[in-house]
Amino acid sequence: MIDVCLLGTGGTVPLPQRWLTSCLIRYQGSSILIDSGEGTQIALHKEGFSCKQIDAVLLTHYHADHTAGIPGLLLSMAKSDRTEPVWIIGPKGLKNFIDGVLKIALYIPFELNLLEYEENEFCFTMSGLEITAFRVRHSVPCWGYEINAARRPRFEAERARAQDIPVRFWNRLQKGETITDGDMTYTPEMVLGAPRKGLKLVYVTDTRPVPVIAEHAKDADLLIAEGMYGEEEKLEKAKLNRHMMMYEAAQIAKEANVKELWLTHYSPSMPHPAQYKEAVQKIFPNTVISKDGQKTDLAFTEE
Amino acid sequence: MIDVCLLGTGGTVPLPQRWLTSCLIRYQGSSILIDSGEGTQIALHKEGFSCKQIDAVLLTHYHADHTAGIPGLLLSMAKSDRTEPVWIIGPKGLKNFIDGVLKIALYIPFELNLLEYEENEFCFTMSGLEITAFRVRHSVPCWGYEINAARRPRFEAERARAQDIPVRFWNRLQKGETITDGDMTYTPEMVLGAPRKGLKLVYVTDTRPVPVIAEHAKDADLLIAEGMYGEEEKLEKAKLNRHMMMYEAAQIAKEANVKELWLTHYSPSMPHPAQYKEAVQKIFPNTVISKDGQKTDLAFTEE
Repeated sequence: MIDVCLLGTGGTVPLPQRWLTSCLIRYQGSSILIDSGEGTQIALHKEGFSCKQIDAVLLTHYHADHTAGIPGLLLSMAKSDRTEPVWIIGPKGLKNFIDGVLKIALYIPFELNLLEYEENEFCFTMSGLEITAFRVRHSVPCWGYEINAARRPRFEAERARAQDIPVRFWNRLQKGETITDGDMTYTPEMVLGAPRKGLKLVYVTDTRPVPVIAEHAKDADLLIAEGMYGEEEKLEKAKLNRHMMMYEAAQIAKEANVKELWLTHYSPSMPHPAQYKEAVQKIFPNTVISKDGQKTDLAFTEE
Repeated sequence: MIDVCLLGTGGTVPLPQRWLTSCLIRYQGSSILIDSGEGTQIALHKEGFSCKQIDAVLLTHYHADHTAGIPGLLLSMAKSDRTEPVWIIGPKGLKNFIDGVLKIALYIPFELNLLEYEENEFCFTMSGLEITAFRVRHSVPCWGYEINAARRPRFEAERARAQDIPVRFWNRLQKGETITDGDMTYTPEMVLGAPRKGLKLVYVTDTRPVPVIAEHAKDADLLIAEGMYGEEEKLEKAKLNRHMMMYEAAQIAKEANVKELWLTHYSPSMPHPAQYKEAVQKIFPNTVISKDGQKTDLAFTEE
């Protein structure tokens, strides 16, 4: 199960009634935050989460509405007596950014582990999740994140017994190990069932619609995507500033056959994003006009 | 008249129901902000002010609960199409801090004028206000601000006429100029009345109580001061971290004979600062347990 909380849904500037777009992902006891604009630590607090628990922060790009909350976040971690290192992961420019952060957030008593990438596609594994950063198209270099929770095949004890496989090897076989014992060789295939569907979550903002988004979001359980404007006449503005329209995100969700689409990163010029609900649901019915604090538990679907 | 708005009253970390301590001062069309922690731009917005209007930001010290809102503030100014320069004024360390800010807030399209001081007492004039930064005692170098709006003496037209002073000189005399015209010398004293009381506002956080505060706050119209804790048993903690207790601030207000004291910079551990109202008002009756958005218009008292 992946717990997802979209802490804020705003773009550009934080508003009194709308935090900036940021997403907390919790899986098997670990917490990963994607983006952290000004006020994200307050939104976390409001939703009942503690800064202390966060293991890693993934950044999409270095516009401050996605990053300016980092100094306060790190200091609040420090005040909560955190001593474990924090991972900060982001595209090229991370070290320069963190250099700036440390001139504002002085006295960080724990280690910052930095993972800076610049490939168009960059994969890593963290807290049991397989994560791929993929380059999108914004006014500055920007990446989306595909997050996968793989699921191990079921261990079939009946088959193991039928093949006289010693019980002491079961655990290692379940974990995918091949075991040689005297003349005998036992492989995971001998005891494991068919592959089971995992979970996939894709987060993408800020960007124009580009084919790579649907490729990564293919059959995802949840796509969280920018819907900067609902007004069709703002398309030119969206193109100019490299942002995505609500209906463009809905088209991607449809094309990628995702289960659900959450829109976010609304322009401050759009006080009531829900007024476009009907229009975007005509394109992709399972579209949610997210609100701050939108939550779900993504559950594995197969027994 | 000086318009004062205490945008937030929190210390250390911003809370969902309490912005960080920051004060907006408006005088004769200019706006000066003292301190800007994470979320200050949201508090400004909430109170109906625009970031665009701010002419100067004064910083007391470089703890992030007083500074981490600067990147977002500058970017919101940028988004409001501001082109005029912004003054940022603070103690030694300002250039290093701004160097960090500019690694987070990229693309600032207006000039930043920096005024960095390190004297224990540093005076400057800005937007018609005489401002003195005075060093207090915190865990890092920290300054308070004394802000004075001087008031010109009344121009006494009857006296000017009685002395046959040509009307063409009246305006220059009113502004304090001495004028020689042929054999005649006209001085401001010939036409100006007695000195009139100006307005004084003092802002001081974070600090232990030190004599310099009452000296600068002497007879002030408003003293805005830290009241980190109300609980008497937290005195040792306040001493250790160099913060000021509510009742210590009240004692300073009494000693300095200020008209009104606003407490602020409450510890996040103190959810209901108003519960100490009666106790601090026993020391200094005109104590206000400030709330976010506390406002007043300080008006000149003499005709």
